[in-house]
Amino acid sequence: MGLLSEGLTQLLIPLAALVGLAFALLQWFLVSRVKVSGSYSDGNGYKDKLIGEAEEGVDSLEVTIKVAEIQNAISIGATSFLFTQYRYLSIFVGVFSAIIFLFLGSVKGFSTKSEPCTYNTGNTCKPALANAFFTTIAFLLGALTSVLSGFFGMKIATYANARTTLEARRGVGKAFITAFRSGAVMGFLLAANGLLVLYITINLFKLYYGDDWEGLYESITGYGLGGSSMALFGRVGGGIYTKAADVGADLVGKVERNIPEDDPRNPAVIADNVGDNVGDIAGMGSDLFGSYAESSCAALFVASISSFGISHDYTAMSYPLIISSMGIVVCLLTTLFATDLFEIKKVSEIEPSLKRQLLISTVLMTAGIAGVTFVALPSEFTLFSFGTNKAVKNWYLFFCVAIGLWAGLVIGYTTEYYTSNAYSPVQDVADSCRTGAATNVIFGLALGYKSVIIPVFAIAFAIYVSFSLAAMYGIAVAALGMLSTISTGLAIDAYGPISDNAGGIAEMAGMSHEIRERTDALDAAGNTTAAIGKGFAIGSAALVSLALFGAYVSRAGIETVDVLTPKVFIGLLVGAMLPYWFSAMTMKSVGSAALKMVEEVRRQFNTIPGLMEGTAKPDYATCVKISTDASLKEMIPPGALVMLTPLIAGTFFGVETLAGILAGSLVSGVQIAISASNTGGAWDNAKKYIEAGASEHAKSLGPKGSDPHKAAVIGDTIGDPLKDTSGPSLNILIKLMAVESLVFAPFFAAHGGVLFKWL
Amino acid sequence: MGLLSEGLTQLLIPLAALVGLAFALLQWFLVSRVKVSGSYSDGNGYKDKLIGEAEEGVDSLEVTIKVAEIQNAISIGATSFLFTQYRYLSIFVGVFSAIIFLFLGSVKGFSTKSEPCTYNTGNTCKPALANAFFTTIAFLLGALTSVLSGFFGMKIATYANARTTLEARRGVGKAFITAFRSGAVMGFLLAANGLLVLYITINLFKLYYGDDWEGLYESITGYGLGGSSMALFGRVGGGIYTKAADVGADLVGKVERNIPEDDPRNPAVIADNVGDNVGDIAGMGSDLFGSYAESSCAALFVASISSFGISHDYTAMSYPLIISSMGIVVCLLTTLFATDLFEIKKVSEIEPSLKRQLLISTVLMTAGIAGVTFVALPSEFTLFSFGTNKAVKNWYLFFCVAIGLWAGLVIGYTTEYYTSNAYSPVQDVADSCRTGAATNVIFGLALGYKSVIIPVFAIAFAIYVSFSLAAMYGIAVAALGMLSTISTGLAIDAYGPISDNAGGIAEMAGMSHEIRERTDALDAAGNTTAAIGKGFAIGSAALVSLALFGAYVSRAGIETVDVLTPKVFIGLLVGAMLPYWFSAMTMKSVGSAALKMVEEVRRQFNTIPGLMEGTAKPDYATCVKISTDASLKEMIPPGALVMLTPLIAGTFFGVETLAGILAGSLVSGVQIAISASNTGGAWDNAKKYIEAGASEHAKSLGPKGSDPHKAAVIGDTIGDPLKDTSGPSLNILIKLMAVESLVFAPFFAAHGGVLFKWL
Repeated sequence: MGLLSEGLTQLLIPLAALVGLAFALLQWFLVSRVKVSGSYSDGNGYKDKLIGEAEEGVDSLEVTIKVAEIQNAISIGATSFLFTQYRYLSIFVGVFSAIIFLFLGSVKGFSTKSEPCTYNTGNTCKPALANAFFTTIAFLLGALTSVLSGFFGMKIATYANARTTLEARRGVGKAFITAFRSGAVMGFLLAANGLLVLYITINLFKLYYGDDWEGLYESITGYGLGGSSMALFGRVGGGIYTKAADVGADLVGKVERNIPEDDPRNPAVIADNVGDNVGDIAGMGSDLFGSYAESSCAALFVASISSFGISHDYTAMSYPLIISSMGIVVCLLTTLFATDLFEIKKVSEIEPSLKRQLLISTVLMTAGIAGVTFVALPSEFTLFSFGTNKAVKNWYLFFCVAIGLWAGLVIGYTTEYYTSNAYSPVQDVADSCRTGAATNVIFGLALGYKSVIIPVFAIAFAIYVSFSLAAMYGIAVAALGMLSTISTGLAIDAYGPISDNAGGIAEMAGMSHEIRERTDALDAAGNTTAAIGKGFAIGSAALVSLALFGAYVSRAGIETVDVLTPKVFIGLLVGAMLPYWFSAMTMKSVGSAALKMVEEVRRQFNTIPGLMEGTAKPDYATCVKISTDASLKEMIPPGALVMLTPLIAGTFFGVETLAGILAGSLVSGVQIAISASNTGGAWDNAKKYIEAGASEHAKSLGPKGSDPHKAAVIGDTIGDPLKDTSGPSLNILIKLMAVESLVFAPFFAAHGGVLFKWL
Repeated sequence: MGLLSEGLTQLLIPLAALVGLAFALLQWFLVSRVKVSGSYSDGNGYKDKLIGEAEEGVDSLEVTIKVAEIQNAISIGATSFLFTQYRYLSIFVGVFSAIIFLFLGSVKGFSTKSEPCTYNTGNTCKPALANAFFTTIAFLLGALTSVLSGFFGMKIATYANARTTLEARRGVGKAFITAFRSGAVMGFLLAANGLLVLYITINLFKLYYGDDWEGLYESITGYGLGGSSMALFGRVGGGIYTKAADVGADLVGKVERNIPEDDPRNPAVIADNVGDNVGDIAGMGSDLFGSYAESSCAALFVASISSFGISHDYTAMSYPLIISSMGIVVCLLTTLFATDLFEIKKVSEIEPSLKRQLLISTVLMTAGIAGVTFVALPSEFTLFSFGTNKAVKNWYLFFCVAIGLWAGLVIGYTTEYYTSNAYSPVQDVADSCRTGAATNVIFGLALGYKSVIIPVFAIAFAIYVSFSLAAMYGIAVAALGMLSTISTGLAIDAYGPISDNAGGIAEMAGMSHEIRERTDALDAAGNTTAAIGKGFAIGSAALVSLALFGAYVSRAGIETVDVLTPKVFIGLLVGAMLPYWFSAMTMKSVGSAALKMVEEVRRQFNTIPGLMEGTAKPDYATCVKISTDASLKEMIPPGALVMLTPLIAGTFFGVETLAGILAGSLVSGVQIAISASNTGGAWDNAKKYIEAGASEHAKSLGPKGSDPHKAAVIGDTIGDPLKDTSGPSLNILIKLMAVESLVFAPFFAAHGGVLFKWL
């Protein structure tokens, strides 16, 4: 046994979660001190009637009221989209709950009799029917928590965007703090909420399961499935929404009509800004929550069938939750560096400050992991590894978690190098715009492909070390290590879309050029941090999927996944194809929806007299409706592909082919996801590089409207669906198929492979 | 034993090869009856001084002389490039021969003593040093044959291009026959040559090896390695050459100066036309020869360690060569359908006629395989399958070969569907040009991703069936089945670049608009057939690589390649990344070389007075030099990546990690290769669809120079490096790494994995 007693563990985990929640509320309070005025009741409960304090650079009262109006429109649009989406999702959740219950219940023919345990031999475990029931409950809880994570994130983002705009009048530093604090609210809410719900669920389930930890933690995997399946629809639906609007708005506004981004005359502008909140914020929140839930579930499941579970060492068993608790504390300290200890005074300080956050959290967390590992774990113990037992020392696990954490940093920094316009890769892409859009696209694609190399080596290294030290449990805790600083990661990630929205609001409210420049600078750093966030999401998804894959293989009773058997090899080949199929669907969806949007925007410009002159108002609502309808309709086929593949493969082709599919989609999906995100990020920042004209080189390519700039805008538009729809959805594809396979593993092991059996 | 005696086998194989050679010469003779006139001696040995016969639509004598001059310039450019390239390659071949000899010789410490056989237990085999020596010889022969295949292809193509132009005056049918016959020359030369050299090499090696078939066929694998390594540099170097010129010419000519494609005023136009011959013809010839050599070697090697080798059944052992012999005969009959039985009268008949060729050859070949299988193979025999023996009936092998053949047809037809502008996918891409280049690119990428689905299922199905029936030998003969109609495949593939060149010559010689329209129609069909050819190349590469992978695993003595071991998994992950790394290099190379080309072309337009007016001649030679230098310099890093990865991985990380890398690069590379080829083909044909304006829909997007057309040109330019450089090079990457691993397997098994051993 480790030093930490069970009672203390039971106390510390919820305490950390509550501290995280309290910190999130504190940050919210600090953000709320920036007052948005308005002569209306916004219907969302924030009735801030005070006028923003009059400071230097302040615009007229009229502008401030306009800001409030626009914020309100964005908030209403985002809320109404999410509610519509949730209505659809509730149908899915209902149907899928039934599938889970029926499939898992049928494993032992719905028998209510207790069974001998699989791993804890000699003891009796609860009936399969109970596992089916509790897995379904965990699925529902996971889905609910995921939805809440996305929803709260969207709420705070739409609350903070206008405040960031207003603070930009007082300087870039103030605006930065507001946006960053709001990101922190989301980060801490999500991490604390995820931990708390998981903790409570485990303790409630334990009331029934008692000493049957095998069944208990098997059921808990449903939590990961619930979280991730909501994330899938959130990412895909939100991604299609935001990019249909963005691409549509840009194609007519910037390219045809030559009006600036976010110009209020553009009918798609509100849809575009709503999209940032439902896609980049709510979708990403659900995504990272899903990763967090899945890696916790994978680690808990593997631990439950190893010595912690067999010997009923509660503290050691809770090691994954203790790491996350420590993560909340570390991120809290890290946040203070950005908000209180240092102050941003110049634009050039923004990116280094965000990078510093990553580094500080990683260094602090390394110490934190060391502490946690030595107090929570016995000095030596046994892990289960595909039919064999492996003796492990506690400091092995320190290295597993730490290597995940540091691999995350390497991925983050590599992503920054390839997507920030401070370095040569993006500058080369910008330079290639001299010869037009074609070379820009060729260079951008090459950049994305190249940016895969270092992250893949980092992931491979982390996998090799953590697997060698502690088998699949090592991989699962490495994934948790990468995600342990999730609050900080989310804070710097959410900061991007909030700044983007702030810029949009400044433009729409007709604020001065200076304000817009400040928000643009925030936004350029935001593009890079968004890419870093996606890098983390993908890196952790790779580790999580592998851990889930390992758990699945253990649960399905497979001892080798041999590439030399045709069943596995065809799985591998088809699995490697799935990310392409999925991307084809999502890219095409964005393209088609954008075409509709373009037609509508053109129609409005052509038929509404006075629109271009600014004397008539566009019909924003129709554009919002096009995005909403497209995203709800188009999220179904890719969603079905991901949800049905494991079910079909497992049922008809059996557990080995499914194992091949999981491995194939994992190794192939990681590459496309990273390259798509980075290509898109690089194009976006190459455009911003030309627009900002901060160096002699950049000036020679500009200004806005020059031929190289036009070429850069085309690249940016192509990158939109790559970086915000298909790329980031792919992490969910690989994770979700893995966790779904894990949940259904008992069924596939019992009844799967119908087709091969029949042949 | 089968029905066919050893003596008859010894007679029939070389006979088929000679028939193939004779048929190629006959076709060449028929093509040569079209006379190209000129007042010069072209220095290439064809001194055709006669003036083309005067027929309807004939242009002036001046034009005919101009055609001859241009042909001469292209031919000289292509020949001189290939000779320069061969000088570089000879250094590589020298160094790599030494590496092969030293590595393989060191397996038993350069001992000259005979060894007990590995598989044919109880017997004595030749020393490892002898295998090292003969593998090196086979490597040299393979390299030489590959180079000759490319070179002869280029020669006939540059001989036929002007003749196709001249025949276009007499109608589209005549021009088609000329281009197609020339393609057939290349197809039959290559297939017959490859078979003959392999046959002779085996028989010569047998003089030394006698009854040691293990050593004999192990050495023969060097033939595949030689063929494929030349193909790598041919594809990559040729691909960079052709696309640097093409992209550079288009960016200035079409986009900036608004002059037509292949306009003689464009300084890069000769380099562009030379490029078609060195990239699409010579590179592709080497590539398909490589596939053919490798699949034969893989099948022979697997057979040698199975019952055919153990029981010394020469006829059954030669089954792979007998299939290829039958393929030559079948393709000969098939060709007659296109050249003699049916006549093309309308443009719309071209594509169906080429498609019919594929179908006819497949149907005839199915019957041919059945015959060959029943006469050559004993009715039942044993195959070696990763440590176990498997009893196989001869009709199992019929199904293996046939399924490979038909999977090829499915891939070919799918490719046609996604890249021909007769179907909706390309038309949708063309339609998306309405909203600009960005949507065109998004739709094109989505199309490419989607086009992967059916081919991957076809390959997976072929793998499953052939592996289940006859283990790795089944896969190897399935690959041979797909390649058995290689002569027809190459004929319809080479037809494309020849037509493309013919169009270029017509434009440059200032021939009438009607002629140009005819060659454009040929060329549009050629884009589709080129994509089909690439589809075949990729599909067969996947099967070949898997067969080589199986042979490697057998030779390295690995019994399982378990994804659940970290060594294998990291190999899988890194292997899946390699195609991205490789593509990043090749795309960037094309981009950079194109930028240089653009600058040079711009410089000439700006500094040479009278160039735009057509009164002064451009400096073609400088553009040729830029392409040459770029391609020679830039082919080295990707070449090094491919050649060094197996050596480094095998030596430092060992045979299992290398197995993972091979599997990973195979499953990931297939997808990128197919999607890149098809995306590029679709963009090219979307542009041609708008230009041709054959339907109401197409007319609404055109004419040339309209905004949608400009957007289509951008897509076409982006697609160039995808479809002609990085995409098709990827098949070589996956095949070459596999065959290299196979050749070096004895070394890795004996001395590999230094790093893990040390840890």
